[in-house]
Amino acid sequence: MRCFVVLSHTGPLSPEFPLADLPGSAGRLDILCRCATEAFLLSHGIRRDVRLYLVIRGKLLIRLDGASLRYLNPDERSTAALLRKAIARAQGVDPGEWAPSTPGIAVRWGALAHVRAELEAEGFGVYVLEEGGEFIRGVPFPERAAFVLSDHRDFAPEDLAALDGLPRVSLGPRALQAQTCIALVHNELDLREAGWTSVSCR
Amino acid sequence: MRCFVVLSHTGPLSPEFPLADLPGSAGRLDILCRCATEAFLLSHGIRRDVRLYLVIRGKLLIRLDGASLRYLNPDERSTAALLRKAIARAQGVDPGEWAPSTPGIAVRWGALAHVRAELEAEGFGVYVLEEGGEFIRGVPFPERAAFVLSDHRDFAPEDLAALDGLPRVSLGPRALQAQTCIALVHNELDLREAGWTSVSCR
Repeated sequence: MRCFVVLSHTGPLSPEFPLADLPGSAGRLDILCRCATEAFLLSHGIRRDVRLYLVIRGKLLIRLDGASLRYLNPDERSTAALLRKAIARAQGVDPGEWAPSTPGIAVRWGALAHVRAELEAEGFGVYVLEEGGEFIRGVPFPERAAFVLSDHRDFAPEDLAALDGLPRVSLGPRALQAQTCIALVHNELDLREAGWTSVSCR
Repeated sequence: MRCFVVLSHTGPLSPEFPLADLPGSAGRLDILCRCATEAFLLSHGIRRDVRLYLVIRGKLLIRLDGASLRYLNPDERSTAALLRKAIARAQGVDPGEWAPSTPGIAVRWGALAHVRAELEAEGFGVYVLEEGGEFIRGVPFPERAAFVLSDHRDFAPEDLAALDGLPRVSLGPRALQAQTCIALVHNELDLREAGWTSVSCR
């Protein structure tokens, strides 16, 4: 099982934003939408063995589970509508409690540290996608691997504190958009699972 | 220099569509928007040495040149607005004549065969991204390489006729979305250019 954790430093904490202005009044929600598309969608099908956490401003967590996910289409606008429903669902929910939104999507108030704790409790190996890390093609991963990445901004000091001690992995020589990173991780793991390549091929 | 040629089998030939319904009334224009994002945009910057052709219904060609491209933002809606301007610009233009739209974007009436001829005349090696092709990590590419890929539909018989005799390249064991394929090609070539990997590493 694969997991991605995307940190949004500017995303919305309340659902009062128009779907026609995702980069502006929705605080670059377009990035999170593209991340959901790359995390779950194949050309014709959905990756059921994937989980995606969106961590908005270190306060609001949205969890998408491929096993039960419904209504996810590839375009940004419809994905933003799904996320807006989740954000609306969160209003008034007690901190620390996962609230179900649409099928396969849940929401709670909480921080990156909660996500890390949840993943480690489930036996995931957690990796940070960061320039300067070890080149992915040489890194062996456990069957349950989670990858933490940032949006258009660098990791903030409080992010780095919550990610302390975790291994860093790099995807290449260029600084890439968040959804591109997800695409590259999926491909590397797809290739290994299918025996097209192996670790430490470099 | 890298080039991508994306075949759209359902895209719009006229600009009368709302930006709020890219997957529907705009005939999956969302796919072409994501392809433009992946072709040109890094985390903070634009790939200037890239060209992208969009071939809509085998009739309308839109060419985006990174060297002079302006106003391209990562989100689908704003990219769709740029493409809609280009499609509007094409109305009434004589067949065979490139008409400039916004900076870095030109449009003409023409078919895939015209694109192939233009690329080969400029010395590009042209490759078709297709399942069953040779695994990309073992394929050497010339400095000028162009990659042809299809949208959510398979290549049509007329596409295959125009692509006759070209080498086929595969990216992995899964059937991927078009923009994902562009992300993977870029990464493989980035890695080679920076010396992180080499051909036939498998």
